[in-house]
Amino acid sequence: MIQISDTTLRDGAQAEGISFSLDDKLQILKELDDLGVSWIEGGNPASNPLDRAFFEAVASLPRLRHAKIAAFGSTCRPHTAAGEDEALEILAGTQADLKTVFGKSSRSQVSLVLRCSPEENLRMIEDTVRFLKGRCTSVWYDAEHFFDAFAEDPDYALQTLSAAEAAGAQRIILCDTNGGALPSDVSAAVSYVRERICIPLGIHCHNDCGLAVANSLAALENGCDLVQGTLCGIGERCGNADLCTLLPLISLKLHRTCLPEGHLSRLTHVSRVAAEIMNIVPNENAPFVGYSAFAHKGGMHIDAILKNHSTYEQIDPESVGNQRRFLLSDQSGRAGIYARLGKILPDLNRDSKETEAVVKKLKEMEADGYTYENADGSFELLALDTLGRRPSFFRVLDYHVLSQEGHSGKDARAYLKIEVNGREEINAAEGDGPVNALDLALRKTLALFYPSIATMRLKDFKVRVLNSQGTASRVRVSIESTDGIHLWKTVGVHSNIILASLKALIDSVDYMLTKYVPAGEIHSASLAQGGPAAV
Amino acid sequence: MIQISDTTLRDGAQAEGISFSLDDKLQILKELDDLGVSWIEGGNPASNPLDRAFFEAVASLPRLRHAKIAAFGSTCRPHTAAGEDEALEILAGTQADLKTVFGKSSRSQVSLVLRCSPEENLRMIEDTVRFLKGRCTSVWYDAEHFFDAFAEDPDYALQTLSAAEAAGAQRIILCDTNGGALPSDVSAAVSYVRERICIPLGIHCHNDCGLAVANSLAALENGCDLVQGTLCGIGERCGNADLCTLLPLISLKLHRTCLPEGHLSRLTHVSRVAAEIMNIVPNENAPFVGYSAFAHKGGMHIDAILKNHSTYEQIDPESVGNQRRFLLSDQSGRAGIYARLGKILPDLNRDSKETEAVVKKLKEMEADGYTYENADGSFELLALDTLGRRPSFFRVLDYHVLSQEGHSGKDARAYLKIEVNGREEINAAEGDGPVNALDLALRKTLALFYPSIATMRLKDFKVRVLNSQGTASRVRVSIESTDGIHLWKTVGVHSNIILASLKALIDSVDYMLTKYVPAGEIHSASLAQGGPAAV
Repeated sequence: MIQISDTTLRDGAQAEGISFSLDDKLQILKELDDLGVSWIEGGNPASNPLDRAFFEAVASLPRLRHAKIAAFGSTCRPHTAAGEDEALEILAGTQADLKTVFGKSSRSQVSLVLRCSPEENLRMIEDTVRFLKGRCTSVWYDAEHFFDAFAEDPDYALQTLSAAEAAGAQRIILCDTNGGALPSDVSAAVSYVRERICIPLGIHCHNDCGLAVANSLAALENGCDLVQGTLCGIGERCGNADLCTLLPLISLKLHRTCLPEGHLSRLTHVSRVAAEIMNIVPNENAPFVGYSAFAHKGGMHIDAILKNHSTYEQIDPESVGNQRRFLLSDQSGRAGIYARLGKILPDLNRDSKETEAVVKKLKEMEADGYTYENADGSFELLALDTLGRRPSFFRVLDYHVLSQEGHSGKDARAYLKIEVNGREEINAAEGDGPVNALDLALRKTLALFYPSIATMRLKDFKVRVLNSQGTASRVRVSIESTDGIHLWKTVGVHSNIILASLKALIDSVDYMLTKYVPAGEIHSASLAQGGPAAV
Repeated sequence: MIQISDTTLRDGAQAEGISFSLDDKLQILKELDDLGVSWIEGGNPASNPLDRAFFEAVASLPRLRHAKIAAFGSTCRPHTAAGEDEALEILAGTQADLKTVFGKSSRSQVSLVLRCSPEENLRMIEDTVRFLKGRCTSVWYDAEHFFDAFAEDPDYALQTLSAAEAAGAQRIILCDTNGGALPSDVSAAVSYVRERICIPLGIHCHNDCGLAVANSLAALENGCDLVQGTLCGIGERCGNADLCTLLPLISLKLHRTCLPEGHLSRLTHVSRVAAEIMNIVPNENAPFVGYSAFAHKGGMHIDAILKNHSTYEQIDPESVGNQRRFLLSDQSGRAGIYARLGKILPDLNRDSKETEAVVKKLKEMEADGYTYENADGSFELLALDTLGRRPSFFRVLDYHVLSQEGHSGKDARAYLKIEVNGREEINAAEGDGPVNALDLALRKTLALFYPSIATMRLKDFKVRVLNSQGTASRVRVSIESTDGIHLWKTVGVHSNIILASLKALIDSVDYMLTKYVPAGEIHSASLAQGGPAAV
């Protein structure tokens, strides 16, 4: 059994661009507990009021199902007794299952940063751990910069650990604080410590060399039985060890238990929900949980995958809750197109005329600048359209967009006329730029017929210029939309960026209406009478 | 000496969302050669016409300064002589310094995918290498799925390598094609092969376990002396080994030479230019080259960094051309900015008030979403502007753009009023989309004053959405312009894509007027009298 300690809420909060609210922290806590990690490091109560509020809020919650909570702090100040350190008093008074304190392992850092003697540092570690032991049940010791310290002076580095052990710490976490260690350094140091320290050991790595995951594995293979990391690998500089990578590795490659039975398949979902809460764009290429992690593009690869999944997949995507995707591109060939069509229209025969028609249409659209590899929504609508099965929810009859240097923030206005079952509606909106104005006008007007459209919002908007002929180039607009639960992607191509955007927007709304809007709402709209809504 | 082989243009092109034009490939080739990698794998000429065009274009270029070019292909088909395989004939006929062919190492994959006997696979490898050796000087063999194959049947896996060696291959590249190997697997397999194969060995890893970099290091430590990877780690699924991480690790941690002396400090610049060309968002947390890689947020960390950089930095950021940033008190980057400023304004002193002012202005613009990494024209104008030295050629007094679904190809109209030395001129144009119409109107009007403007045209136009808040996001427009002789790049940022484009267009025209328009023309325009041109 490998224990998992999550520090998304504490060390992860040091990441550039991350700024948690109390509610964010509580939501992530719940996701982590559902996932089943052993420990959740919640924050440093002495360093900021938000973290104090977090521990108070957690204390009033029902007991978590899987995880225990750790509060984090520092050793006492130089030449100050632990019992007289205000920050330690706050930490001691915080309600949590565990207190973790960090201290310095490196002789040179003690001198440079603490500006005290190596012996005083040992006194600080021992005094701090002993003080906290006297006030609560469990204390762990985080050995900051341990691997750099070990390279500098292994004897002194070990003495700092022994001080914590002697004072009663129940576990020591070895930290590669600057992220500069190599796996061979970590293996050697952990083996050395494992022979000389009796209490359990954990590992905490940073990713400044792109080696946080590899270094964590090296530590687990050499004597640590706990690993610390963050969701999506967030953290200061290049981040912390990514738990979304480590959990599958530990379970599926090392064959060690680290989550409750069956919980690994929740990982992709948890990683995406966490990214939403943290308001970061998830890394599409992230191992195991990324949107592209099991996406196949090369024609030869797709052909082989169809013969046997293991040919180009190291694990079954479903084991981590992810899914296989075949990308459509000029490289993917027929095998890829058939593979994707079959998922949408399982009644289609691989060699039927209908399939042939979709393939032909797709080639035409690709020649026109479309790409469906990242636009599942538009691909599905295109297939339905080609087969005469695409439902018609509305038509845009006319539009008009005006951009003009303005004095307010809103410098564009759009008007739009649409028709739903013979009933016409005209509306207008203003926005930041012409596309934003058009988007607002379209959704505002459609929500009159389909109220669910009000829950829809655009999550991402990308523009690609297709050929290099200046501003008259063809433009491809890719849109990611969400209703808060689902996520879908659509695409539009035109020489006019506004028309390309409108095409992608129309596909996006149509896809939501096709898939996610309750049948009752569609039915009500279909009963609308002809003629203008308001006379 | 470790040789670096870049496969951004071949295996990197398999990444979701990547779609290179010929011009993109040639630009990246130039960046890689300037960086100083040993080998550049350009593509698979038998699989698509773009790659054939690439090798033809490269053959007509002047000799590269550092890199040699490799063309990639597959072993011949089962039960077909290499001499009768059309794809191999195309590969043999391609102009390149090196031909690399891949073949299968795994007994089960031979049976599942090739559907032939293990012996026939050995014949295919040997026959293919021998055929290519007869047609060109250098042949390398890529052992696909080597580590999975080694785990399955080490004897057979080794036989496939021996077949390539016996046929005259000059190097074997061991590939972790599915990215499923652990560093311990790689170390063991490479050591085993190193004892049994005489020709040099290389390593090619995928990142499906987040271990591509660690596995590459393990291979280099156990007998490989060449590593293959991609810029920014792009590639199918979770990508390939990231050269932007590996180059600093090899140079600064393993202390092995892999680039020409002094070139490592170009890495950050190359990674960002490449991301711009590939139109991908660079990973801000990327080791070494990421925007956040040396960004310090924690107060305690910043305090310690100010005492001594090594406290929370594993290496000097300038060694890879990156820079330290303090997220609480920004005071970074002076050396890098001065290095660029000195080129434009050699009379400026590094510590002068003027330099200070430009650094400050640049920080403000970067905070606003600008990036000058790939916009030398706008950077130069910004510096001149800040110092009060930017000449004023014209002012846009007013504009108005109308987009409307039209029946002709031209569905947008722009009118524009500009002023040159007190003389106002109003004009209009129609175009494909609002930006094209505005661009045409601007240049048409300016050409009345500066006839050379008529020779200017836009060569490329890229749009990047800066944050994911749907269509109201801030938009960065990058423009490449030419007058047929020179090439310059400018940038504009705004929430409205039309205004962002207008800013980049104005910079582009201003830059041409500053640098490339004959003095006589500027002088004539300056003599224009106030009042409307035509009464």
